[in-house]
Amino acid sequence: MSTTRIGVFDSGVGGLTVLRELIRHVPNSEYLYFGDTARLPYGSKSVETIARYAVGASRFLQDRGVELLVVACNTATALALDCIVQSLEIPVIGVVEPGAEHAANASKSRSVIVIGTEATVLSHAYQRALASRGVTTREKACPLLVPLVEEGWTEHYVTEQVARIYLGEVFAEEIRSRSHSDVLVLGCTHYPLLKPLLKRIVPNDVAIVDSAESTAQVVAQKLGLAPEPHADATADVYCFVTDSVEKFRRLGPRFLGHPLNGVEHINLGG
Amino acid sequence: MSTTRIGVFDSGVGGLTVLRELIRHVPNSEYLYFGDTARLPYGSKSVETIARYAVGASRFLQDRGVELLVVACNTATALALDCIVQSLEIPVIGVVEPGAEHAANASKSRSVIVIGTEATVLSHAYQRALASRGVTTREKACPLLVPLVEEGWTEHYVTEQVARIYLGEVFAEEIRSRSHSDVLVLGCTHYPLLKPLLKRIVPNDVAIVDSAESTAQVVAQKLGLAPEPHADATADVYCFVTDSVEKFRRLGPRFLGHPLNGVEHINLGG
Repeated sequence: MSTTRIGVFDSGVGGLTVLRELIRHVPNSEYLYFGDTARLPYGSKSVETIARYAVGASRFLQDRGVELLVVACNTATALALDCIVQSLEIPVIGVVEPGAEHAANASKSRSVIVIGTEATVLSHAYQRALASRGVTTREKACPLLVPLVEEGWTEHYVTEQVARIYLGEVFAEEIRSRSHSDVLVLGCTHYPLLKPLLKRIVPNDVAIVDSAESTAQVVAQKLGLAPEPHADATADVYCFVTDSVEKFRRLGPRFLGHPLNGVEHINLGG
Repeated sequence: MSTTRIGVFDSGVGGLTVLRELIRHVPNSEYLYFGDTARLPYGSKSVETIARYAVGASRFLQDRGVELLVVACNTATALALDCIVQSLEIPVIGVVEPGAEHAANASKSRSVIVIGTEATVLSHAYQRALASRGVTTREKACPLLVPLVEEGWTEHYVTEQVARIYLGEVFAEEIRSRSHSDVLVLGCTHYPLLKPLLKRIVPNDVAIVDSAESTAQVVAQKLGLAPEPHADATADVYCFVTDSVEKFRRLGPRFLGHPLNGVEHINLGG
């Protein structure tokens, strides 16, 4: 079996949660990860700016010989997937469609909640993807969760309060509109690190769907593999970052789950 | 009296708190404000990246005919002021020296606390500026305060808790080391919006120094004006931003204190 070279593009370190799931589902591959850390966060920027950044980074990975590109950034997928697909000659998989498909399959009430960055929510990309599957969507921007995760406060009482405020607003709207969502989609790569905390504060009958895992399953199936994760899976990983290598090496392991070795700084002229 | 054209450079909207003070202290001027919103935040990025961005933006303002440049961004001042000065032919004033001078004059105990972004604190720019004035400095990075201000939570109990955690750590160190700082320097352009909240939680005998106001006083003196603010001062303001004009117009007034009219999008190729 020949090794597949897979590109993973993200605005920063968050996409390493997607890479982590990819390694578990598609091990023995070679991964080139691009983290556009000099220009993050994408979540609060405009569609034109995000599309320009995302296309540049994706072309860089294509030029390095990747056979398949995973757009790990929810915001870049939501706002720029079409631009990226049109700019490349290789297959491109974003995180929104797999997450939406997984959520649609998991929802009995045909109603789900999606949390993400401001830009992801304003794009309504998840809402459209779920509407085409007959599911109604309530979207909620949670801009403070990314900085809280990056501060390392994944089990901090302040983070729990902030999450309770954001989700409390969502569930209050649910009560007012007499709807009942039974799935919460984590529509941002940083949120899987908050899964234990979020599990405690959502109602018991609400399932949590992680777009990172859903995306890895889709990539596995596309490559003819079973969608089940492998225990102790490993892979060759090489990272390109547009800002500090040292900072990426320091923050990255929290998201990837193990240390990072090959990290190279590159300048896309931004 | 001829009108002076003054450039103000910041990574985003925060520098509008400096522009607000400039207008109060140097009214009847023409201000060109550059907000590098497509590449913010600078506070978590490396020195090389920040210097590259800051020099590009400063040259842009010089090309537009400004006679004096104010680097309103604490992080850009801390990390890139020398690069900016060397790249321009006009006088350049950053926010660190004026803030440090004001703090040194205000401190009887010769010991001050500076709060700012991670990059500003790691640069120790305030520490050096204060050490040269015989003042010892305790620096504390407060990375969550900027996103909390941008969420609009300037009087929110979560923001108060976060500020209490950060400042509590600082004052606990003060007790352990038996030092007593009597000045708190707001070393980030977003923090003036938290001044009422911070006033409540610092000890009564700690004075708050706002680098924005100190910088405006220095500019006024440089132009031969009295360092006192003018009531109801106005000025012509024109803004250039690298990301969404609409978002800048929406967020900006909170920092500037009045509506923004002339805002133009420009692309520096980033």
